[in-house]
Amino acid sequence: MIRPQDYATEGAVHLNGNSLGPPLRTLAGELERFVSEQWARRQVRGWWQDGWLDLPRTIGDKLAALLGAAPGQIVVAGETTSSTLFNVLVAACRLRPDRPVLLIEAESFPTDLYIADSVARLLGRRTVVESRSGFDLFLRERGNEVAAAVAAPVDFRTGERREIGPTTALCHEYGALSVWDLSHAAGVLPVDLDDNRVDLAIGCGYKYLGGGPGAPAFTYVPERLQSRIDFPLSGWHGHARMFEMSPTFTPADGIDRARTGTPPVLGLVGLNHALDPLVEVGIDELRRRSGELGEYFLGQLRRRRPDLAARLASPKDPDRRGGHLALRIPEAEKVEAVLAERGVHIDSRPPDLIRLAFAPLYVTEEQLRRAVEALCEAVEGVR
Amino acid sequence: MIRPQDYATEGAVHLNGNSLGPPLRTLAGELERFVSEQWARRQVRGWWQDGWLDLPRTIGDKLAALLGAAPGQIVVAGETTSSTLFNVLVAACRLRPDRPVLLIEAESFPTDLYIADSVARLLGRRTVVESRSGFDLFLRERGNEVAAAVAAPVDFRTGERREIGPTTALCHEYGALSVWDLSHAAGVLPVDLDDNRVDLAIGCGYKYLGGGPGAPAFTYVPERLQSRIDFPLSGWHGHARMFEMSPTFTPADGIDRARTGTPPVLGLVGLNHALDPLVEVGIDELRRRSGELGEYFLGQLRRRRPDLAARLASPKDPDRRGGHLALRIPEAEKVEAVLAERGVHIDSRPPDLIRLAFAPLYVTEEQLRRAVEALCEAVEGVR
Repeated sequence: MIRPQDYATEGAVHLNGNSLGPPLRTLAGELERFVSEQWARRQVRGWWQDGWLDLPRTIGDKLAALLGAAPGQIVVAGETTSSTLFNVLVAACRLRPDRPVLLIEAESFPTDLYIADSVARLLGRRTVVESRSGFDLFLRERGNEVAAAVAAPVDFRTGERREIGPTTALCHEYGALSVWDLSHAAGVLPVDLDDNRVDLAIGCGYKYLGGGPGAPAFTYVPERLQSRIDFPLSGWHGHARMFEMSPTFTPADGIDRARTGTPPVLGLVGLNHALDPLVEVGIDELRRRSGELGEYFLGQLRRRRPDLAARLASPKDPDRRGGHLALRIPEAEKVEAVLAERGVHIDSRPPDLIRLAFAPLYVTEEQLRRAVEALCEAVEGVR
Repeated sequence: MIRPQDYATEGAVHLNGNSLGPPLRTLAGELERFVSEQWARRQVRGWWQDGWLDLPRTIGDKLAALLGAAPGQIVVAGETTSSTLFNVLVAACRLRPDRPVLLIEAESFPTDLYIADSVARLLGRRTVVESRSGFDLFLRERGNEVAAAVAAPVDFRTGERREIGPTTALCHEYGALSVWDLSHAAGVLPVDLDDNRVDLAIGCGYKYLGGGPGAPAFTYVPERLQSRIDFPLSGWHGHARMFEMSPTFTPADGIDRARTGTPPVLGLVGLNHALDPLVEVGIDELRRRSGELGEYFLGQLRRRRPDLAARLASPKDPDRRGGHLALRIPEAEKVEAVLAERGVHIDSRPPDLIRLAFAPLYVTEEQLRRAVEALCEAVEGVR
């Protein structure tokens, strides 16, 4: 069941769930339990007795339910999203040792471009950065040079979707690995990783997943690749027998191989807690409700200021959008600040893009009416 | 001032500060403030208004005070210790492009060996793993082949120290970089990074630093190397102008260059809070008190069971030990379990090593008398 009252929204309207979103009201209590009942009482034995050692897998299996993956294929090693992508891209290139190209969408979040460049440089490959249609074209024309193709199912600026199934099929037609950054999709859009035969995927623990600022990232490795994949961040938690303290590394079987160093339990506890309501509601209902909220917002805006609604920088068809949409509004940063003063959280990409996200668990129609009113007044005031 | 009562020891004796240690009583409240007053209220603006964006540097400068570094040379990017070492070792090798060897002490914590192997393999170097004296000998005989030499100031098993100054000077004599894993020293032993002319260092945020299970790791890069160092984990938080969202990576000036992806704020808040009492007391007093506690323990044990005290697997001279010591005790794991039942937390390394750490802020003489009594009875009971 969707219960917006479970979130500590502090009376504000949170339309930036594509970035952070509010915490659950129960989070502080959960952290208190971790500190006082687990860490303080059971000390280092908490790794076993309180399941800390398994948290990367426990969380991974919750995510699996949201991402269309069978259990045992997702893990939260405890790194940032950037380093997690690094780990996955090096491993992807190693699975295709003779292919010179790491293909990546130009619309990727910038850190993905930086990491792809870094990996290409380390491994003597080269990155090819192509805009949406160019990306597909490159695969069709020179796909047999591509080791891995990196894309996102939701454009972080416009919310425009890229279909995972056809893109992955295209990659496979040419023997390339299909790698996805799910950060802007996880928790709001079904991605059907198993059914789509995705090769590798990563994503952050914040945004719609709600794990809080900088919550640790996840890694998806399908069972069919787990015995062959070869990660560079080979920390002891990814060892087959970590407590034997062997001087040489033997990768663990299964998804544990994607683990790295000792995981940051505090961050994991936060992320683990955030996922429960998402899993309870289920990804199909999360998607349905998010789409409904987005259309409601646009409908209200059209009634109040059709000219603003016409500035949609995202697909009109809600099926072709992820959980957020973008409007072209001059002086976007000022509009964001004015709205924040009125308790409406959106985000701006200078010079003229504002983004509004329709996170299904804590946004309501009443809030959207407030947001439309505030947005119209802000635009009028800023002019 | 040292106030053991500030720690949530739950009546137990915490002699495993070399591993985890107890939380501060104020931690749960601090986390509650972060969740309710910062995240819930100021939302994404917390990155600026609550200093989240600066936390990696804020914490870094607190650590600098403990590690003998001038401000602006340490950062907590938010990765695990293993990945942080990976980042630093790739960068170290890049600073010495023509040298084939990555030298590492055989006594290193295993994850350091795995990461060194991984880096060597990626960069076409080779690891040379040498035991303590062999390490120095290799430097003297073939030091001009060594890109970087990785060691720890405190042996994680025995507590035996390796002097940072002479080792670093030896590295420099042959043009090798001196890289240190400070995990078992930070917060209990002065390491004088600047004075010792250390080239690069990393360490975990738990153990004596008290950041809690898996707390994020730190990176030290002295000012003289900051403009030349070239890290592979080039996430957007290490970009010179991260919010410009440029498609290409330009490394930030200064220590910010060692940042990676979006940092995990929850974990950083925990670590930041843990450091305050350490900084307040100061590293010299922390060291003095830890040594005093260790000698007190050994004195008590010698009186009660001189045969057990004679099983010291660490240097007798307290100046040659870090914050912990090891005893050779058969069935070490059983002894650990029996002691835990009696509220005395130590740790065992099978088959026959137990380790006891003298963390200066929450261990007391009264507790050590209890620990000696419990240890003697446990050894007698286990036999």
